[in-house]
Amino acid sequence: MDATVKYLLDETRIPKDWYNIVADLPRAPDPALHPGTLQPIGPADLAPIFPMDLILQEVSTERHVAIPEPVREIYRQWRPSPLVRARRLEKALDTPARIYFKYEGVSAAGSHKLNTAVAQAFYNREAGIRRLSTETGAGQWGSSLAYAGALFGLEVRVFMVKSSFHQKPYRKGLMETWGATCIASPSNQTEAGRRVLAEHPDTSGSLGIAISEAVEIAAQNADTNYALGSVLNHVLLHQTIIGQEAIEQFALADDYPDILVGCTGGGSNFAGLVFPFLGAQLRGGRRVKAIACEPAACPTLTRGPFAYDFGDTGHLTPLVRMHTLGSAFIPPGFHAGGLRYHGMAPLVSLVQELGLIESRAFKQTPCFEAGVQFSRNEGILPAPEANHAIRAVIDEALRCKEEGVSRAILFNLSGHGHFDMQAYIDYFAGKLEDRSYDEADLQAALAELPKVAA
Amino acid sequence: MDATVKYLLDETRIPKDWYNIVADLPRAPDPALHPGTLQPIGPADLAPIFPMDLILQEVSTERHVAIPEPVREIYRQWRPSPLVRARRLEKALDTPARIYFKYEGVSAAGSHKLNTAVAQAFYNREAGIRRLSTETGAGQWGSSLAYAGALFGLEVRVFMVKSSFHQKPYRKGLMETWGATCIASPSNQTEAGRRVLAEHPDTSGSLGIAISEAVEIAAQNADTNYALGSVLNHVLLHQTIIGQEAIEQFALADDYPDILVGCTGGGSNFAGLVFPFLGAQLRGGRRVKAIACEPAACPTLTRGPFAYDFGDTGHLTPLVRMHTLGSAFIPPGFHAGGLRYHGMAPLVSLVQELGLIESRAFKQTPCFEAGVQFSRNEGILPAPEANHAIRAVIDEALRCKEEGVSRAILFNLSGHGHFDMQAYIDYFAGKLEDRSYDEADLQAALAELPKVAA
Repeated sequence: MDATVKYLLDETRIPKDWYNIVADLPRAPDPALHPGTLQPIGPADLAPIFPMDLILQEVSTERHVAIPEPVREIYRQWRPSPLVRARRLEKALDTPARIYFKYEGVSAAGSHKLNTAVAQAFYNREAGIRRLSTETGAGQWGSSLAYAGALFGLEVRVFMVKSSFHQKPYRKGLMETWGATCIASPSNQTEAGRRVLAEHPDTSGSLGIAISEAVEIAAQNADTNYALGSVLNHVLLHQTIIGQEAIEQFALADDYPDILVGCTGGGSNFAGLVFPFLGAQLRGGRRVKAIACEPAACPTLTRGPFAYDFGDTGHLTPLVRMHTLGSAFIPPGFHAGGLRYHGMAPLVSLVQELGLIESRAFKQTPCFEAGVQFSRNEGILPAPEANHAIRAVIDEALRCKEEGVSRAILFNLSGHGHFDMQAYIDYFAGKLEDRSYDEADLQAALAELPKVAA
Repeated sequence: MDATVKYLLDETRIPKDWYNIVADLPRAPDPALHPGTLQPIGPADLAPIFPMDLILQEVSTERHVAIPEPVREIYRQWRPSPLVRARRLEKALDTPARIYFKYEGVSAAGSHKLNTAVAQAFYNREAGIRRLSTETGAGQWGSSLAYAGALFGLEVRVFMVKSSFHQKPYRKGLMETWGATCIASPSNQTEAGRRVLAEHPDTSGSLGIAISEAVEIAAQNADTNYALGSVLNHVLLHQTIIGQEAIEQFALADDYPDILVGCTGGGSNFAGLVFPFLGAQLRGGRRVKAIACEPAACPTLTRGPFAYDFGDTGHLTPLVRMHTLGSAFIPPGFHAGGLRYHGMAPLVSLVQELGLIESRAFKQTPCFEAGVQFSRNEGILPAPEANHAIRAVIDEALRCKEEGVSRAILFNLSGHGHFDMQAYIDYFAGKLEDRSYDEADLQAALAELPKVAA
């Protein structure tokens, strides 16, 4: 057999620290603002819904944050995740490119989301919290928090966007297997949900609404905290183990990526892969080209201004400065439920502002084409979200062929699509639509952005 | 961190040979018989539906059969599979037992079935075959052959038992993603299917009928061969990489199993894990206790006589000597579709006759209980089939606790249950029934066993 396909690390090589890119950025992130006063918030403002350890991580400027041993202990069930060389795909594309992927679908919940779910459940239990509430779109995050809750004896209540709830009954089954409760959102369990239902009884829901419901539950119950699966600094921080492991694995492969690719919904799987490499670059290391891939129907990084906005529809959350399409923006239907968020992680938004990454928007049909081509060669069936990254990877690999240049391309295969088969079935049945957002809707949502002097 | 959870091998340690237990058995297997003449068949009788390389493996008495390099090359995408120590489950059970599992769900198709699918597709392509036909029950095998077909450019047609076809639409979606065609069986594409439909238009189908359909297609088309996912000697042979890797991994763990456990439908995942250990025992090595776990509703090893019988309902296949409930036996409905076969691999049947293994039958509800307990500790959601093994493992671990003895228990976690969520949903909804087979039906099926002087 010729060179290796999988680059494996043993459990002793699980990183001991998470990497915080804030320490290496030339500019400090903008502070979060209180939704009532529009003044910068302090740790006490977040204390009703987050444990203090996570609040401190949210504002940390330290380069390294130690991973607690009980969290590393659980990471051992599936980490370090494999770095895989996609040799069959390379051959099928007849490209000189060297294509690698970091496969996060090996986690029990099927995606990278478990990396932060375990950490968040740990810190909450340490803080004496008994229950967690959260939202989920595609279901990857809700499943992950459900399992993490089982590991630490926490009750988990998941508000699942109603359209996904009905499209993906098996995600609910998975959450229940791990002992969590899964509720279609909007629900009548919260004031925020009841308000939406009164006005739009037939609504299919949105991530912004589900966040409002989950935050409301957490704010009103002292034994309950809120957990978010992306966007926030501490969530991105927890995902940096992906990129840190990849750096070690590239050393094993005696190679280094020229191009990094990830899909972006809230930004955490992209940041998790890319930030450790960007950090090395910022500290004088090799330059990498990093490409964030988003859906054309929800083009946050490519079309949204870098502005202060709410994280949710009900305007219960603090305002953060980010690329946003406006909290009132509802994207048209498409199958990558994990990429339907109106905003983008503030840190991913900031690194784009700093010129450290670029972003591209893709329609869903060519993404499924890419995912199917990948799957017929590499086996793994990617989540529809990850297909956005694969589209960009194949485009870049074909460019290598045109140019006769061999580049190393690394992407984050953030999760498998075993619970997203309906999307593939629709794709093969020719039922996928490449609907664009409505420009007038977007302008209306942008016009509602809160007026904050940045 | 204390001792390791996952025992990993790198790709150079993928076995170079499959292990053939026939070489070490004190008694030769009984020959297969021609369905018309009831005389022993020769290689030429099987040539219309199998490539000669596989026919020769079927009757081989060599201890080692070389794995072709192109097959090992593909195995590298997911093999060696991890050996995992279930430390959290041990703690939850408060048992001195050391519980290990070999996790075959890491394959793209989600189970051990891909091990033989790749090998079978390879040999067929080498023989100039263009198309493969097969049957599938739960869908693990059909999915695996679909992907293997994609790898070697073979068209794959899968006859899926009608009840599973409708229960598990996502399995069909997965097969189609890999380019295969999936048809509900009985279908009107074959004489065997049309005959059943004429008599029982509302039948939910059975593995025996689906096999008849697939064999008929292969027998009638020169460019088409048949592929079987279990039962036959060459299929079990291909699965022995599981046990061989496990032996190497136990050496890394500085341990050795006292008890081996696997679920049995056709017998291949059980044999794949157990035969290499039994071989070592037969050659003078350490004795292991091996437990085959089957559904109480289809108790082939615990209730079926060791007798010559047909492999299919339509009586197109050769007769083999095996534990069987009779080819006319239709088990009542239960959720482990992969364990609904009326017969058992002749080699697994023979090792039970020789006293080398024991078998136990389990009702499905306690199996799901065991699977959920496993999942809440180890994360992985097991296939309903594998839950039978987990039930026995937990029983044995609790016995260790009662007796105050530490034993090493190894089981084959043959696949994940991501496409079987409806079964878990039914379990939580209290909708699972522990239906027994009808004793009169069993006796009637046994009375129809062909009369062959053994």
